[in-house]
Amino acid sequence: MRPIAILGIGQTIVEEQWEKSLRDIAVDAITNALADAGRESADGLFVGNMMSAIINSQNNLGALLADWSGLKGKDSVKVEAACASGSAAFRSGLMAVASGEMDSALVVGVEKMVDRTSHEVTAALATAADADYEVDMGVSFVGLNALIMRRYMHEYGWKHADFAPFAINAHANAVHNPFARLRHKITLEEFEKSAMIATPINLLDASPIGDGAAAIYLVPAESLNGGPHILVAGSAAATDTIAIHDRSEPLFLNAAYQSARMAYRQAGVGPEDIDLFELHDAFTIMSALSLEACGYAEPGQGVRLGLDGAIGIQGRIPITTRGGLKARGHPVGATGVYQIAEVVQQLRGQCAQTQVADARIGMAQNIGGSGATIITHILKKA
Amino acid sequence: MRPIAILGIGQTIVEEQWEKSLRDIAVDAITNALADAGRESADGLFVGNMMSAIINSQNNLGALLADWSGLKGKDSVKVEAACASGSAAFRSGLMAVASGEMDSALVVGVEKMVDRTSHEVTAALATAADADYEVDMGVSFVGLNALIMRRYMHEYGWKHADFAPFAINAHANAVHNPFARLRHKITLEEFEKSAMIATPINLLDASPIGDGAAAIYLVPAESLNGGPHILVAGSAAATDTIAIHDRSEPLFLNAAYQSARMAYRQAGVGPEDIDLFELHDAFTIMSALSLEACGYAEPGQGVRLGLDGAIGIQGRIPITTRGGLKARGHPVGATGVYQIAEVVQQLRGQCAQTQVADARIGMAQNIGGSGATIITHILKKA
Repeated sequence: MRPIAILGIGQTIVEEQWEKSLRDIAVDAITNALADAGRESADGLFVGNMMSAIINSQNNLGALLADWSGLKGKDSVKVEAACASGSAAFRSGLMAVASGEMDSALVVGVEKMVDRTSHEVTAALATAADADYEVDMGVSFVGLNALIMRRYMHEYGWKHADFAPFAINAHANAVHNPFARLRHKITLEEFEKSAMIATPINLLDASPIGDGAAAIYLVPAESLNGGPHILVAGSAAATDTIAIHDRSEPLFLNAAYQSARMAYRQAGVGPEDIDLFELHDAFTIMSALSLEACGYAEPGQGVRLGLDGAIGIQGRIPITTRGGLKARGHPVGATGVYQIAEVVQQLRGQCAQTQVADARIGMAQNIGGSGATIITHILKKA
Repeated sequence: MRPIAILGIGQTIVEEQWEKSLRDIAVDAITNALADAGRESADGLFVGNMMSAIINSQNNLGALLADWSGLKGKDSVKVEAACASGSAAFRSGLMAVASGEMDSALVVGVEKMVDRTSHEVTAALATAADADYEVDMGVSFVGLNALIMRRYMHEYGWKHADFAPFAINAHANAVHNPFARLRHKITLEEFEKSAMIATPINLLDASPIGDGAAAIYLVPAESLNGGPHILVAGSAAATDTIAIHDRSEPLFLNAAYQSARMAYRQAGVGPEDIDLFELHDAFTIMSALSLEACGYAEPGQGVRLGLDGAIGIQGRIPITTRGGLKARGHPVGATGVYQIAEVVQQLRGQCAQTQVADARIGMAQNIGGSGATIITHILKKA
């Protein structure tokens, strides 16, 4: 593939955007990314979205958003991989430009989730799991993650409070991110007393949904004539069984391991070279599992990184530096694009109080389903 | 882009496959394509599907189908562009292999539609149109097409029976296609007396839905060391406004014109060089509009090609040679892949009674929404 650079990024705040429709939010992010890139159009548009068909009665988001964002006529499609839809769309845009078929591409991740009842959203989120062999048995998506967390605590002897640092760190970082949904700190006491959702996952283990969109503008690196830029140094996707019960080792995110391994190799780096890691903390347990699968801890020891302070801005491997899914919020199909935009902000040195010093290499990892689709990107300052 | 060849194809019959689930049907097509290609796996899987989230309560088809088809672990995503989802997935697979990111890709289009009531399917189909500005006003998808057909008849003076040749030709060809849903001929009298759906569209103007899947195996042409193969000579996608009322000329398929123009240029051919054309005859009116936009007739004169016998197997521009959407059936997200597989069958000379003599160049065109997303592919015998 010819090397690809990120020329612009755009984000909207993640919140309950009652006054805006799905298309408005997406157009806001696209407009911001175009302005940031200093461009007026792009050869193609790749839309990451998971649930507009269910929640917004709208398919064909490619044509819709090309039309509404001033890209009318351009090649445009939606890419879906459950909660990994955003990074899947990014990867599609990447391959389109890398193939030479396009000389520029816009990627937008968008989700408009709060227009329906939480019952309807819970049902829509469950479409990420196996409809025939998991969901039809009555388990929700948070329920599946609760089973994983319970098993992890049982196998390795951790208690619920040991997961608190993941949530506390995410909230502390979100305070300084103007696009974050939950811009307030939380304490260990609040974490422990929070309302139970699906034992052992309580409210502060879980990421909030929200309306939001993020966009990225891609160009061939060669078109920048050697000027400073953000390079996509690694991009890889892997899958696992969609149903958790089909995995021989349900506590190991094999698709995270595989996609990170490929991305490390492409970028010519190892875990020790990554300056920050935007991981997929939909639930605190997923932070631990992601760190383990990507080479930062032995199986069962991911929580120790939180307890040891290694995940903070000045730690060994800073994670969720802009608030993560937990506190920036999780507009599902948009999340993967937010993660990549946040890595770009770090590599550009735009993160003020939560800036990772001398950040040169950052990683983003996006998960669809309970570890079924995992996509890893590594960005480098060039 | 490096040139891409089609190494294998697979299809299932289009019908009410009550005894099979979505995943079973997709796996059937993938298995057939792998066997036809003489391969056991592929580097990636691209799934075209429009409505599984609504009809089957299932998202994340990429991971699901990789898992169930023996491609567990492979990069796999779903691509959606309403009824053009199949060709959009094909185009994504094409760019993935062309970029060098993959050395082989499987594309599968699948739709399992008959498990719900026709009311639910009608609502799901309407997600291809503008939810806020068309569907919320009460119009269905067939209703939108009926408005276009009525306007066309008014503008150009055609009567309903003038559209009959499109349906009669499709049914006549489907008789010889073992994968077709409606393998019986129809007469002009039957066409005229058929039950009205949305004036002026009656039952025999409209394509039937159905359960079905088709798959294609892609490799770089260079990997075949110069042996005979089917080359993807042109691939282009264009969009238009999603709402019909936003178009200054609602009777001209501008996205068909644009994508065909780009595909002709890439392939170095013109309309006169195309030996057969698998067009998107979801309704008879769409056959006329597609022929006009692709250079076979002046605006308003597409129906004349049917009346003059130009669309038959021995005609000037044979269309729907395997039955088209009208008689092969329209499992929406799979249709675009069926069209390409059918062109391959013609170029391979596998079509017996409906074989186009000396077919060397074929075109497939897939439409999402009422002309909102149109994707054109040109294949060449090499």
